[in-house]
Amino acid sequence: MTRDDALALDAADPLAPLREQFELPPGVIYLDGNSLGVLPRATAARVAAVVQQEWGQGLIRSWNAAGWITLPQRVGDKIARLVGVGAGELVVADSTSVNLFKVLSAALNIVAADAPERRRIVSERSNFPTDLYIAESLARERGFELLLCDADQLPAHLDQRAAVLMLTHVNYRTGRMHDMAALSRAAHEAGALTVWDLAHSAGAVPLSLASDGADFAVGCGYKYLNGGPGAPAFVWAHPRHAERFWQPLAGWMGHAAPFEFTPGYRPAPGITRYLCGTPALLSLAALECGVDTVLAAGPLGGMAALRAKSLALTRLFAERVSATCPMLTMASPPLDAQRGSQVCFSHPELGYPVMQALIARGVIGDFRAPDILRFGFTPLYSRFVDAFDAAEHLREVLDTAEWRQPEFNQRHAVT
Amino acid sequence: MTRDDALALDAADPLAPLREQFELPPGVIYLDGNSLGVLPRATAARVAAVVQQEWGQGLIRSWNAAGWITLPQRVGDKIARLVGVGAGELVVADSTSVNLFKVLSAALNIVAADAPERRRIVSERSNFPTDLYIAESLARERGFELLLCDADQLPAHLDQRAAVLMLTHVNYRTGRMHDMAALSRAAHEAGALTVWDLAHSAGAVPLSLASDGADFAVGCGYKYLNGGPGAPAFVWAHPRHAERFWQPLAGWMGHAAPFEFTPGYRPAPGITRYLCGTPALLSLAALECGVDTVLAAGPLGGMAALRAKSLALTRLFAERVSATCPMLTMASPPLDAQRGSQVCFSHPELGYPVMQALIARGVIGDFRAPDILRFGFTPLYSRFVDAFDAAEHLREVLDTAEWRQPEFNQRHAVT
Repeated sequence: MTRDDALALDAADPLAPLREQFELPPGVIYLDGNSLGVLPRATAARVAAVVQQEWGQGLIRSWNAAGWITLPQRVGDKIARLVGVGAGELVVADSTSVNLFKVLSAALNIVAADAPERRRIVSERSNFPTDLYIAESLARERGFELLLCDADQLPAHLDQRAAVLMLTHVNYRTGRMHDMAALSRAAHEAGALTVWDLAHSAGAVPLSLASDGADFAVGCGYKYLNGGPGAPAFVWAHPRHAERFWQPLAGWMGHAAPFEFTPGYRPAPGITRYLCGTPALLSLAALECGVDTVLAAGPLGGMAALRAKSLALTRLFAERVSATCPMLTMASPPLDAQRGSQVCFSHPELGYPVMQALIARGVIGDFRAPDILRFGFTPLYSRFVDAFDAAEHLREVLDTAEWRQPEFNQRHAVT
Repeated sequence: MTRDDALALDAADPLAPLREQFELPPGVIYLDGNSLGVLPRATAARVAAVVQQEWGQGLIRSWNAAGWITLPQRVGDKIARLVGVGAGELVVADSTSVNLFKVLSAALNIVAADAPERRRIVSERSNFPTDLYIAESLARERGFELLLCDADQLPAHLDQRAAVLMLTHVNYRTGRMHDMAALSRAAHEAGALTVWDLAHSAGAVPLSLASDGADFAVGCGYKYLNGGPGAPAFVWAHPRHAERFWQPLAGWMGHAAPFEFTPGYRPAPGITRYLCGTPALLSLAALECGVDTVLAAGPLGGMAALRAKSLALTRLFAERVSATCPMLTMASPPLDAQRGSQVCFSHPELGYPVMQALIARGVIGDFRAPDILRFGFTPLYSRFVDAFDAAEHLREVLDTAEWRQPEFNQRHAVT
């Protein structure tokens, strides 16, 4: 594999034109779309129109005239197409953490009604911390136990004590992807419900939530969906569960008739009851532009084509780094079927300064404590030559000990 | 009072230059800033800079380099100055509904620890519905009773059964303002805690939360703070309560060290534990511009000066409409001390079409079911001549029965 080989792969890539949808800063190889997706070209004009025309000129009238009131459902229907569920089953709302609170509450309510002897939430010890914190909070409040184990021990804990299996589909650190269908089947056979966090999956890997046995799901708008910093998140409930309970964040936007202003809560039909307060419209409008960049892959093969390119990118990068950086240990699964859209390497001490040195060179990945160098690949805009060049930069940083420079060893607030 | 008298009041108004901070659509008298504040001139450029420079060019680096990570506290400190609390005591987060869930949960946790025999949340039947829905949800979940009564019966229900008094300071329909100090004192004397919703107060009336006996407060960013549609909300806890419990939405942004990625939740010190997920940055940046428009009144007398002008505006409008529209009944308190920054009139049948006819004339107030015509005055940009002209338009709509036109009788999704 030479740099020319990588350039040839880009030249032959049918998805290459999708990169034109984005504003990318010059001189940067961006491998952090799994933390914050890049800016779509359409977003600045759309947000400006929402600010200046819809808000500035339309003012309060835009709730009707500009369709603000149904935007959570409209953008939700677009995301539904990317995660393999039906229109009307998914809405955009709040943050991933808040949505997880809603669906985990609902799942625990269902279990409390149907199988009150089940008192365990089962999850992975290395799940994203905010998921564990929310689960810890709900477990404490509702009298459940939060059982954390390693990924390979999950099946053994799906027994008659399990109430809910709560997992992030693709691990935020290692990029390891669970087999959603197999684990959901095991959970259902044991009598438990499943809650899936799609933060590192939606827009990155093909999903079929309903046929793969998900009961509830949440996901993030600002990673592979390119919705912008802190973009609102999404929430889905399988239609057979959607109306069984209200979720506890029973705000007016989830009411059956919010503008009747009645004092008693009457939940809206279906997934709309998972809305709560007034949505952050500027961020929500930006999210729609981001989702549109992923939908634009539809005529070119959609999520299946994006997945094939993503695997080719991560394979190329993993092979190059493994071959040239012997002091790093690959922390992501080598098998395609087990890997999301990122590749991670660990080093017991140098992860942080090495990543800072890379960022100073314009190769932007991130560090995840305590020891992980994380590189996310977004097939909408990542190129094969980017994967090749990034691996070369990494090798040079290590070979020259560039990471020793003092400025690369100063900790920032956000790592 | 003639139109020239109103013009003379504007000419003599020392706050008049503050109107220059805003983009106001031509031909519109906007009296709905209590539902959605108008667009500050600074906002479009600021949001564009966040989108194009901070996100588009800075990408993930902007969490540190552009100070995104501390923006909830920075904007919170600015709002703190408007509601009479200290820096570091208030943060911007989520929606008002979600924040109410947090603080009401915390208050109920405190009561459950200190006075478990108290099982009642006391509120006003005409409180804003989302507040009641959240309270209904928490009451059901925690085994409390939600007692709703009329405003004048509140003191009678502050007894040994009361756990929490939860009120919106200024009523969303009538504009009636509670005496926060007196009711809080009564609640405390009875042994109950107080939770105040400042949705129609922050930026509209002077507040001194701590000295007026508030234990917790939440408020809205998109009304008098001019933060834009769905702007994030804010949350405050009295410092003596801030660290007593976590709130149940225990997301990673409220963790003591979110980037250590540890599996156990350890709440941040103080009010920061009331953060949950990643904030909606575009909407949060716009909120800061809105808050700055209120802070700009500081050198001109601040909230006290704004309040004096607000009362003069609502008095003028109330007097004109009462004198010229006998078929309407004033629904707002005539006494200044009991009135927020809005004036409402009721009509048993015609509220909706009359408001639609007014909006078609460019006089934008709103209708609140079942019978309220609501007119909000924002002293930052509302003029005395606006109040005069709006009253004239209202009289003409009624005198000519313009409201009979079919298009004014078609219901919109949002009223």
